[in-house]
Amino acid sequence: MALWVRYAHDGTEGFGTLEGESVAVHQGDLFAGATPTGETLALADLRLEAPVRPGAFIGLWNNFHAAAAKQGNAIPEFPLYFLKNPRCVVGPGEPIRPPAAYAGKVLYEGELGLVIGRTVSNADETEAAAAIFGLTCVNDVTALDLLNADASFPQWARAKGCDSFGPIGPAIATGLDWSALRVTVALNGRVRQDYPLNDMILPPARIVSLISREMTLHPGDVIACGTSVGALPMRPGMEVAVTIEGIGTLSNPYAPEG
Amino acid sequence: MALWVRYAHDGTEGFGTLEGESVAVHQGDLFAGATPTGETLALADLRLEAPVRPGAFIGLWNNFHAAAAKQGNAIPEFPLYFLKNPRCVVGPGEPIRPPAAYAGKVLYEGELGLVIGRTVSNADETEAAAAIFGLTCVNDVTALDLLNADASFPQWARAKGCDSFGPIGPAIATGLDWSALRVTVALNGRVRQDYPLNDMILPPARIVSLISREMTLHPGDVIACGTSVGALPMRPGMEVAVTIEGIGTLSNPYAPEG
Repeated sequence: MALWVRYAHDGTEGFGTLEGESVAVHQGDLFAGATPTGETLALADLRLEAPVRPGAFIGLWNNFHAAAAKQGNAIPEFPLYFLKNPRCVVGPGEPIRPPAAYAGKVLYEGELGLVIGRTVSNADETEAAAAIFGLTCVNDVTALDLLNADASFPQWARAKGCDSFGPIGPAIATGLDWSALRVTVALNGRVRQDYPLNDMILPPARIVSLISREMTLHPGDVIACGTSVGALPMRPGMEVAVTIEGIGTLSNPYAPEG
Repeated sequence: MALWVRYAHDGTEGFGTLEGESVAVHQGDLFAGATPTGETLALADLRLEAPVRPGAFIGLWNNFHAAAAKQGNAIPEFPLYFLKNPRCVVGPGEPIRPPAAYAGKVLYEGELGLVIGRTVSNADETEAAAAIFGLTCVNDVTALDLLNADASFPQWARAKGCDSFGPIGPAIATGLDWSALRVTVALNGRVRQDYPLNDMILPPARIVSLISREMTLHPGDVIACGTSVGALPMRPGMEVAVTIEGIGTLSNPYAPEG
């Protein structure tokens, strides 16, 4: 088990493993092979960044039984996904800012994120499981009023791809059993979303296996596994904290301009 | 006016300007600044690759009056777009291969591609026009039967993001007036799609301006401007050639396995 983080420190970027209140600095490549430099930095002296910058950022819709039942959706056999703009990723503490001209509802959606560690294509579930490097928290932020702004075309990419709509972090946890975990989201400290990951319809290895039959996945790609009940609009100034035990808390302020 | 290409030659990659039957090799960065090395290579000795590897690959739906009229769609005021998997890009001559387990219809869609040359956010139309580095041909390949395989969720990202579903090329043309051009698609030499770009609903500068209000665009990003009437399924073994005068012909075989 390790907790991998990326950070900014004295104007440079680095990565390493989180060990209590410090980070053991590493060199090399997080996925291809990393070795400790021996240097240790105090967490208090760093600014954590998103632990990964995905080349492809996939988000699932309708992947929890509780949410499917509540919304009256059928149980899918293949991952129903959209692509998030990969540049919408922000790290812990960075503000979520809707587009300046947008005054509609903006939802948080707390989710488990799968971080791919190796190139994977046409994988069976065993290979797919081995291709998952680790787990992280994702806030799959959504401009709800953009999604259905045009009656003829649901705008998933647009509604979920605005700059800053992809908080990821605070760490990538390796060696963690996803099935025992819960996702919670607190708004200003009040828990509004709290669901068990074992309610997932398509589990991680099956998601990766099925997607890889059509689309090759690469190291650093992130798959957000979908959310369950309790996703709600945020109000300006709120702090939105997504927590998964063993990974940590990904907290971001919702800060529209003006 | 220049025609920028990327190529493989003797196991290495390079880029340069196409001048008749030869390529003037360049060094540096295509967008940040490229200078000729003085070396020239014969086109016959090269394999052309996709001229750009986009970080974000945006595709528009319903952006031509003729297609909107035929399909009974309303005229959009904002680009209706999906994101294509950016790794689905292939170059001229590379086969289009649907997923092995997919036996449904696969459509070609010949389109104008805009290649972004600088980072652009919240741009007005003048800034947006200046951010377009050049124009290329795109074949926005679509697995039609995946798009609506689930009644509750249209699968744009999946249907358009399969490996090899994003042919781009053969070149990026700079200094070309898009409004005077036509897009043609020929299947085994027979023209099946032939439409004028001045029938576009949202023109290039407006597309870039509007998208940039929500999502920052970066050098190398590609926006496919949508297709018009005449997109049809391909049959195995067909050669699909997208031509835009002044850019060239992007030709790819449709080659399902087995």
